[in-house]
Amino acid sequence: MAGRNVCPLQLQAVEWVQRPRRPIRFMASMRPTRKTDLAPFFEPRNVAVIGSLAEVVGLGQVAIRNMLQFGYSGGIYPVNPSYSEVLGLKVYPSIDEVAEAVDVAIVITPPATVPGIVEQCAHKGVRAAVVVTENFAEAGNDGAELQQRLVDVGRRTGIRVMGPNTVGLVNTANGFTTVPYFIAYERIRSGGVAYCSQSGFVGPAAQPLEDRAYPVSKMCDVGNKCDVNEVDLLDYLATDLETKVVAMHLEDVKDGRAFMEAARKLVAHKPLLIFKAGRSEDGARASASHTGSLAGNELIFDAALRQVGAIRVNSWQEYWDLPRLFATQPLPGGNRVAIITLTGGAGVVAVDVAIDAGLALSVFSGTTAERLGKLSSRLVRNPVDLGPILSVSEDPFSVHEEAIAMVLDDASVDCAVIAIYAGFEGMFPPILEMFGRLKRHVTKPVAVWVYGMKLSVMEEMSRQLEAQGQATYLDLETAVKALGAAAYYSGLRSALESS
Amino acid sequence: MAGRNVCPLQLQAVEWVQRPRRPIRFMASMRPTRKTDLAPFFEPRNVAVIGSLAEVVGLGQVAIRNMLQFGYSGGIYPVNPSYSEVLGLKVYPSIDEVAEAVDVAIVITPPATVPGIVEQCAHKGVRAAVVVTENFAEAGNDGAELQQRLVDVGRRTGIRVMGPNTVGLVNTANGFTTVPYFIAYERIRSGGVAYCSQSGFVGPAAQPLEDRAYPVSKMCDVGNKCDVNEVDLLDYLATDLETKVVAMHLEDVKDGRAFMEAARKLVAHKPLLIFKAGRSEDGARASASHTGSLAGNELIFDAALRQVGAIRVNSWQEYWDLPRLFATQPLPGGNRVAIITLTGGAGVVAVDVAIDAGLALSVFSGTTAERLGKLSSRLVRNPVDLGPILSVSEDPFSVHEEAIAMVLDDASVDCAVIAIYAGFEGMFPPILEMFGRLKRHVTKPVAVWVYGMKLSVMEEMSRQLEAQGQATYLDLETAVKALGAAAYYSGLRSALESS
Repeated sequence: MAGRNVCPLQLQAVEWVQRPRRPIRFMASMRPTRKTDLAPFFEPRNVAVIGSLAEVVGLGQVAIRNMLQFGYSGGIYPVNPSYSEVLGLKVYPSIDEVAEAVDVAIVITPPATVPGIVEQCAHKGVRAAVVVTENFAEAGNDGAELQQRLVDVGRRTGIRVMGPNTVGLVNTANGFTTVPYFIAYERIRSGGVAYCSQSGFVGPAAQPLEDRAYPVSKMCDVGNKCDVNEVDLLDYLATDLETKVVAMHLEDVKDGRAFMEAARKLVAHKPLLIFKAGRSEDGARASASHTGSLAGNELIFDAALRQVGAIRVNSWQEYWDLPRLFATQPLPGGNRVAIITLTGGAGVVAVDVAIDAGLALSVFSGTTAERLGKLSSRLVRNPVDLGPILSVSEDPFSVHEEAIAMVLDDASVDCAVIAIYAGFEGMFPPILEMFGRLKRHVTKPVAVWVYGMKLSVMEEMSRQLEAQGQATYLDLETAVKALGAAAYYSGLRSALESS
Repeated sequence: MAGRNVCPLQLQAVEWVQRPRRPIRFMASMRPTRKTDLAPFFEPRNVAVIGSLAEVVGLGQVAIRNMLQFGYSGGIYPVNPSYSEVLGLKVYPSIDEVAEAVDVAIVITPPATVPGIVEQCAHKGVRAAVVVTENFAEAGNDGAELQQRLVDVGRRTGIRVMGPNTVGLVNTANGFTTVPYFIAYERIRSGGVAYCSQSGFVGPAAQPLEDRAYPVSKMCDVGNKCDVNEVDLLDYLATDLETKVVAMHLEDVKDGRAFMEAARKLVAHKPLLIFKAGRSEDGARASASHTGSLAGNELIFDAALRQVGAIRVNSWQEYWDLPRLFATQPLPGGNRVAIITLTGGAGVVAVDVAIDAGLALSVFSGTTAERLGKLSSRLVRNPVDLGPILSVSEDPFSVHEEAIAMVLDDASVDCAVIAIYAGFEGMFPPILEMFGRLKRHVTKPVAVWVYGMKLSVMEEMSRQLEAQGQATYLDLETAVKALGAAAYYSGLRSALESS
């Protein structure tokens, strides 16, 4: 890929940056219509799996196992001349022998065979191919040449290609996945976040998806992006009913103008969080040898994201955890946050992070202050540190709930971060009941920060609260940043709607 | 406390900031000698516990339980007129009835009784008191007055007071602790990090210390700092043999000049990491109602930290996890980092973080490139992504080890971050053996980043590697930042030694 599409974002975005206050409207007629329909990838009725079917280590077999494990109920057609049956499924010697129409083929064969096999798929009428195989553009010149042949097949036949060098995708709505690596858990929680990336690191075999209860609608690693790329994903996810928020890890952007247009369209309907890696020059070089692509200039990229209203995140942790707030919580009406902690030390840090994240501290009304004051004279101000009163209260859970309700009732509060101490499992029932009751009348976003002294207890508390529809964090700072992102997006949406 | 010592750091530090290139030498004779000896707090031969001895909820009894649990072998003297025995220990009606000399008293009685009880302790010859009781300066005017009375007792009698409003301390060397809250685990790992703070959040009942295997020498919450404060801690820890690195959470500094002097002395011997909360104006206000203190101006504080060579950390996660690198790893000879990952996507992010953290990417020698090239032609450059080769290797663990050894052997490499995939427990033995062998001839600091798909597996892998003397991270970014901090401190030490 080197030499093609070199930093495309730069040229187009410079234009935008120079005119920051003048929105540019694309005229559809001036641009070629881009046919993007990723439905065959994410919602196939039938899938062919072309690759090794050996026990345990055969990636084709593992991919099939994963689909069965996650409850995919479409037709599965393994293709391999050396087998007749695998996992109770009939195996076909070639794709041509499959009688049924096939929407997508997963291709995990040696690199040199890939273009030919994809071409065969295309002729059979397969509409999409996920090429897991590595050693294409990311591996140097020979690989780049091979990748170009794959691109040519796509252009010639119309088959869409995801990858090569990808683990592919997951769709929790139908249990479909192309991931060809062993996954040590039974289910991925279905929810509103689409996690997109250019790395297999964003996949079920490299992430504790079940343990952290990430609410996943789709996952997708576009790998070397020889065809399907971030723009196709944005287009598809903009109208995907299961997806409420998109988190996207990017090392480069193939077509800056198309990216900005697609991002802008998506952002009008749902928030877009971007984790751009390869920021440094060294990072960009590392990216080149990883997915065979080139990263653009940082400042320009940053300006472009601001222009389209995307939210930039800056670490894997933010990438994974910020979106969960959008998946379960309403958007805040403004940026005024209430902070309810059980330790003053955490409260002070939460304030710092809130201010950095663009939030403002709510100033409680006289009525709220008065109501809180009846619980304790020290509770009248934000942040509310319930630690001292709960430690002497005879019924701490009631006081906790009362205080939270009073704060959330205040008209000056747009959103809240609430600390929960999960010291041992005996505390779960009253905490779950409390949030169950609060949830019935609270219409403001709440980020719940869970802390404690046993990881297993904290993690389980977090999962049980998530199952009840709360957005939970094991890290205070990330909880607050999530509210900051929500407030930012809420403001943006208001501005878009009133313009 | 309000009204006293208002932002003391500001005035003194301004002086320093204006002359950044001219080191100021304190002349000992010009300053009053400050008697700082915290040994009675951390290394008491005998402790009196004055407070409730009720089953389960009595904080005095819980504190005693915790000492016994952690193996404290000194004399324990519970004091309470309503009991004659608790946990097999004789209970004394008052401190005066204790025949033996007592080094430290833990005071957990109602606020109004505290000054009198501490005075009684002083008359009995007790040298130190940890006042756990809340509702002093942090609670408003009446509390501030009470706190002043406590200060007066200290001045009059010479007894040193830690707190009030504190959970006190932990010393892993002798099992001593004052923490009066239930702790759900058997042991705290002993190691080289002293964790200091102004919040009970930094304590064993609010942190998964065992699960995360933090290597703790001492922990200390100075609470309202009516007497013992950060300066005393720095003085004490500078010469504490068990402490290799100090992590300090601060909301304010009571005496800026003394703080800088003490910090400078400590930094000459061991690294000092500072997490300063209350950065924003709102945060500073929140701090005031939490520990009754006032935070100083941010820019000045930042400049002061740079002057003394302290490392500023910016989140609880960094506060907890950066120091562990210093506890087990040697200092790097320079700032050139090698990054060895199993997924290119993580490598690119690691490069970004490394550059931000002041590291530079090592450029491997021709010999190293040649050696790596024999494993795979794609391995010749930094970051080294072993993913593609390991996935096709018949003996991936050997290749992994060979590649790591080659990289660490390179003279251009000062330190390394190494990714370990902990997918399931069956992978532990070869990984542990590999690091066991590497450790024998590696004299460079290594940060091990553990990732996987089950939290329990990742966490257990991390603990087992820590037990072997590795510094491990469950978060890539923090692993890299730790190396950045180590390289910074290494450079500072070299500069100090050559000046």
